[in-house]
Amino acid sequence: MEFSSKLLEKAVNEISQLPGIGKRTALRLVLHLLKQPKEQTGFLTQALVAMREEIKFCESCHNISDTAICEICSNTGRNHQLVCVVEDIRDVMAIENTGQFKGVYHVLGGKISPIDGVGPSQLKISTLVEKVKSGKLSEVIFALSSTMEGDTTNFYIYKQIADSGIIISTIARGIAVGDELEYADEVTLGRSILQRLPFEKAIKNN
Amino acid sequence: MEFSSKLLEKAVNEISQLPGIGKRTALRLVLHLLKQPKEQTGFLTQALVAMREEIKFCESCHNISDTAICEICSNTGRNHQLVCVVEDIRDVMAIENTGQFKGVYHVLGGKISPIDGVGPSQLKISTLVEKVKSGKLSEVIFALSSTMEGDTTNFYIYKQIADSGIIISTIARGIAVGDELEYADEVTLGRSILQRLPFEKAIKNN
Repeated sequence: MEFSSKLLEKAVNEISQLPGIGKRTALRLVLHLLKQPKEQTGFLTQALVAMREEIKFCESCHNISDTAICEICSNTGRNHQLVCVVEDIRDVMAIENTGQFKGVYHVLGGKISPIDGVGPSQLKISTLVEKVKSGKLSEVIFALSSTMEGDTTNFYIYKQIADSGIIISTIARGIAVGDELEYADEVTLGRSILQRLPFEKAIKNN
Repeated sequence: MEFSSKLLEKAVNEISQLPGIGKRTALRLVLHLLKQPKEQTGFLTQALVAMREEIKFCESCHNISDTAICEICSNTGRNHQLVCVVEDIRDVMAIENTGQFKGVYHVLGGKISPIDGVGPSQLKISTLVEKVKSGKLSEVIFALSSTMEGDTTNFYIYKQIADSGIIISTIARGIAVGDELEYADEVTLGRSILQRLPFEKAIKNN
């Protein structure tokens, strides 16, 4: 693309470095900003700078927070012996939306993925192991995505805390609620048969 | 969506005001910026602010430019009697890419579209009419999108310059190069038959 303005070109180039945004989309966004009042660009850039400069990560669970200890970790009404291990803040938000979890979280900040150059040392694994070793936890629940990277990360952590004596569980895999059996993939369907549970227990959860 | 951080929420809300970007995509972009060095957010916001504050529009053709008169308008090698009327800078870039046009442009900044609240007064129509009335032009080429809004805008301008005596043309509509006839819509195919041209002239343009 050849631009008639260096300022325009630079703005487009910077925006197109964001994931999933190509040069054409970036140009569309920039032209939109040009049609809006100058203040809107000001609000946008100020919000981004404030977010990047001032955002904190909870010292306990490593989730994004405005305070040193996040709202969930400082909530004494929650079960602090029950820790759910997730990849990032989006998973915390998804689980919180269900209203089914009353424990606390531990946000790893990613999954072990050698292809993307992410090793265990870049994730918040050591602080989780410390928490487990401190003896204050009763259960750790793995809630990572069911992918090769998620399974690798689960297993890497499991090996380090397996002998701690606490319960180590993982969220249930199975046919999604509302799904038809014939369209389910065979691995998921196979697991949901092997990991079947008493009918009375299942209806109690509805 | 409930966020654990007001700073995060504000950044997501501002980004999701851009066209075609929802809250989920905005959150993904913000989390990406958080994983990158702080400088990248700095570069992005500085480029946006500089673009919005300092960008100029060419005084002659109204295209985006870093100077008072853009490169195309100040190029004495181009035919300044031949003016191509387009909607915005993307159309200028598209036509420049073809390498087939040696005249200059007039960028309207949009199309007449009552539904979107865009009337003739918000577009750069009066300066085009002035240029035509000045008697320095030999031809005006309409190159707007072939939509209801584009046709309305063409006709609105045409009515004001029809009696000026200069050539008023529009870019050819027809079957795209490489397209198969059977998949063409009937309006386009009908026009390309009505507006057929001598074979020898057509092959000369290849």
